Amino acid sequence: MIAKTQKEIHLVNRPEGMPSNDDFKFVETEVPAPNEDEVLLRTLYLSVDPYMRGRMRDVKSYIAPFELNKVITGGVLAEVVDSNSTLFKQGDIVNGNLNWAEYNVANEKKLQKVDPTIAPITTRLGVLGLTGLTAYFGLLDIGKPQVGETVVVSGAAGAVGSIVGQIAKIKGAKAVGIAGSDQKVDYLIKELGFDAAVNYKKESFQEDLKKALPDGVDVYFDNVGGDVSDAVIQQLNNQARISLCGSISSYNTEGEDVGPRMQWKFIKTSSMMKGFTLGDYAADFQTGALELGKWLQEGKLKYQETIVEGFENTPDAFFGLFKGTNMGKQLVKVADPEFVKL
Amino acid sequence: MIAKTQKEIHLVNRPEGMPSNDDFKFVETEVPAPNEDEVLLRTLYLSVDPYMRGRMRDVKSYIAPFELNKVITGGVLAEVVDSNSTLFKQGDIVNGNLNWAEYNVANEKKLQKVDPTIAPITTRLGVLGLTGLTAYFGLLDIGKPQVGETVVVSGAAGAVGSIVGQIAKIKGAKAVGIAGSDQKVDYLIKELGFDAAVNYKKESFQEDLKKALPDGVDVYFDNVGGDVSDAVIQQLNNQARISLCGSISSYNTEGEDVGPRMQWKFIKTSSMMKGFTLGDYAADFQTGALELGKWLQEGKLKYQETIVEGFENTPDAFFGLFKGTNMGKQLVKVADPEFVKL
Repeated sequence: MIAKTQKEIHLVNRPEGMPSNDDFKFVETEVPAPNEDEVLLRTLYLSVDPYMRGRMRDVKSYIAPFELNKVITGGVLAEVVDSNSTLFKQGDIVNGNLNWAEYNVANEKKLQKVDPTIAPITTRLGVLGLTGLTAYFGLLDIGKPQVGETVVVSGAAGAVGSIVGQIAKIKGAKAVGIAGSDQKVDYLIKELGFDAAVNYKKESFQEDLKKALPDGVDVYFDNVGGDVSDAVIQQLNNQARISLCGSISSYNTEGEDVGPRMQWKFIKTSSMMKGFTLGDYAADFQTGALELGKWLQEGKLKYQETIVEGFENTPDAFFGLFKGTNMGKQLVKVADPEFVKL
Repeated sequence: MIAKTQKEIHLVNRPEGMPSNDDFKFVETEVPAPNEDEVLLRTLYLSVDPYMRGRMRDVKSYIAPFELNKVITGGVLAEVVDSNSTLFKQGDIVNGNLNWAEYNVANEKKLQKVDPTIAPITTRLGVLGLTGLTAYFGLLDIGKPQVGETVVVSGAAGAVGSIVGQIAKIKGAKAVGIAGSDQKVDYLIKELGFDAAVNYKKESFQEDLKKALPDGVDVYFDNVGGDVSDAVIQQLNNQARISLCGSISSYNTEGEDVGPRMQWKFIKTSSMMKGFTLGDYAADFQTGALELGKWLQEGKLKYQETIVEGFENTPDAFFGLFKGTNMGKQLVKVADPEFVKL
């Protein structure tokens, strides 16, 4: 049954520091009808991602900022509930960059079909989606881990980090994770097969990190920046490679993020650091997705999801990313499908 | 006429901050006699180089630190005055990493012969020596300038920087220099053909730099680090490349060198930064030297030397590197050759 009205989430303030409920507003609107080549979609799952914090600033970046008093957009899994498209029928599951809303109307060209028989559909927002591809290209194209080398990943229990460490292992390297709780450290070592993991919130972090890196660092996949990265950079081996994926420690920092300059360390070790955004690899997405899918089917890649229930809890799920409450991919479950059984 | 005694320069203190005369001692010793396969050399020119400051610290790096109360070693051009080697005869000019001393005894294997008919012999300590090779590999292997791109170089009027800008021009890129005086800025534009140059000591440096970079920065060859590099990094284009050669602004800094963290800028622009030392390219020296020699002969590469006269002024010449008193390659002239006319 299709509702007549629905809610969507608007950005009403540009957050200063840590975002809060005051920055978001739930707005009730009519459920629109699809035009030609369009479908009406009911949201099943939303993806909340750290990069979205950047879009809340009014600053030019690799993607445009969110507009104030307009709906926020992000990764969404939805069910087709009404269709004026020949490509999609009622009950199809689709994935796209859509409104944070209970319903979306979207042109068929903006959507990818999701086959629910291959893997749980939520993997399309995680290990088989942009998250997995980010780990895949950032590690393999920039980090280029070799057999026997040491790969360090920060934000290791997060959606991207947990996949990075496992790909490092698949490639024959040692994986060392940095995460924010002892529970996460245990998970990385016992569940995901990391060779070592360190809790950066402990006072003994600097020593713990050194102990976890008897052979130094050949590749560092950086999700966090800040003090944690300063400490890893001190341990770089000759010809080390740093893949810069994110800098979550600074996303809620107002003013300048200051730390030790590191040029000299890079000169002494002939090391390299490169930033990337996933768009750099758009031409190769299919290759990456196929290999990730194969590893998943072979049981070489595990993933975890933290699922918050209820559309109204979307902001809380987003805030949790910066508090480190998630393990693996953070999702919001909005509804069960009506026209298809998963 | 070979002297009986000679002077050599010992490091007697590890400098704190800016080095001073107190850190060096001139020690008189007997002129030694060469054994089998050895030659006796009279120093004609000494090279003083910024990297030597690093060797004055007691810190593990890519080359071992100088030992206290022992003679300092560096790039030297010398004349063979006595020979027990079949490879070298009296009057030959040679180049090697030798003592900062008026005379050296050296094994023939440690020396390269210098042909004084190809180019002035001092070019072997500069544009046709390690200096030129540093510019060549750091720019071409890491920076990879393309036709029409903008290459920025700091320390642009120095020995390495002045060659970097000219190679950028040879490759069809625009060259923008950063230097420490208006005289140097003029020299870069009028003598070396840089497209623009900026004096970082002016209060208007930040604006001047932006004006000099209407198309942003595609390649940055960094000799200095510090505030100057912070400013350049703000102007990086997408997929920019930074070649880290030196960090002279911090060489005399005690304690931590702190500045804005730049990971986020690298992520937003998918930019890359890589440090190097010349040893990384040892296998390709001949290729580089041949191409540099060709450009020099074709008149495409100009060079300047700042020559201090007198062995006793070697420390002053070294201090000058950090005060920016040199234009191009800083050398010390110790003696004229006796057995050959140049």
